Amino acid sequence: MSCPKHRQIELFVLTYGALVAQLCKDYEKDEDVNKHLDRMGYDIGIRLVEDFLARSAVRKCRSYSETVDVIAQVAFKMYLGVTPSVSCSNTTENEFFLMLDKNPLVDFVEELPAGRCSLCYCNLLCGVIRGALEMVHLAAEVTFVQDRLKGDDVTEIGITFSKKLEDKKHKRQK
Amino acid sequence: MSCPKHRQIELFVLTYGALVAQLCKDYEKDEDVNKHLDRMGYDIGIRLVEDFLARSAVRKCRSYSETVDVIAQVAFKMYLGVTPSVSCSNTTENEFFLMLDKNPLVDFVEELPAGRCSLCYCNLLCGVIRGALEMVHLAAEVTFVQDRLKGDDVTEIGITFSKKLEDKKHKRQK
Repeated sequence: MSCPKHRQIELFVLTYGALVAQLCKDYEKDEDVNKHLDRMGYDIGIRLVEDFLARSAVRKCRSYSETVDVIAQVAFKMYLGVTPSVSCSNTTENEFFLMLDKNPLVDFVEELPAGRCSLCYCNLLCGVIRGALEMVHLAAEVTFVQDRLKGDDVTEIGITFSKKLEDKKHKRQK
Repeated sequence: MSCPKHRQIELFVLTYGALVAQLCKDYEKDEDVNKHLDRMGYDIGIRLVEDFLARSAVRKCRSYSETVDVIAQVAFKMYLGVTPSVSCSNTTENEFFLMLDKNPLVDFVEELPAGRCSLCYCNLLCGVIRGALEMVHLAAEVTFVQDRLKGDDVTEIGITFSKKLEDKKHKRQK
């Protein structure tokens, strides 16, 4: 048998699909579903980060750029089995992008549910990142800026760190 | 770093917790939450079984007993990282029990939510097994017969195959 990790993720992906479907039943507006997915992800992120830090043994990050690299190369790899590529904004130093060539969360999803064209299907991920970052004293806005399910060429998550002061404090604590 | 499988499962376990919490918000009666979890699991099982058969390369099973062994030793191991022990009923030959010493789905759960004493927290699993079995032409009832979250000493899933004729047909097809 090959590595079991790809199997464990399939049960997760299908269960996630059931969660999104349930929220679509519960809330008429896509914005409300997106908000709930983000909020659920946030609650997960603040719990998951402890496990992540304990097990991954990553060094403390000294810059936004290093933090985003850890999210992409260690956290995504660990929890989703994929490694997004990272780019940064040309104009501001606190804005980064994770580009997903392959998004395992949509492995069983061909298109957005009917009438749900504003749904951010994977919005839980944004919440998870936001919650996890908050627990290491980094406030950030995390949103999907491109989504293959919406017809974009790629799936891309934008991370904008919102408090530059927090970064300095974060650095000083080390 | 140690094997990544234990990490992937944590994201699943926390997301599953969010799903159960959402259903508890949506449905007042525990029975309705249990029913929905079972139904969602069923829908997942009928999709997951194809992946399971394709990847696990298990032999076709020639008896109920062999089928239950595959569920415990291959499927549970593959998707949840644990191997329940199997026992069978002393009185009927179509009734089996999977006993879980460790149930990863409740890793982050200390007790049932307040006022939810009839909730079968992990009922999705029963649905997954039921759906997967149905896809290999085996009708079964799958329920929790004991649950640590309800104060039992162990967590135990009962599988009762319900159509003996199906078994014969199943055998003939090989």
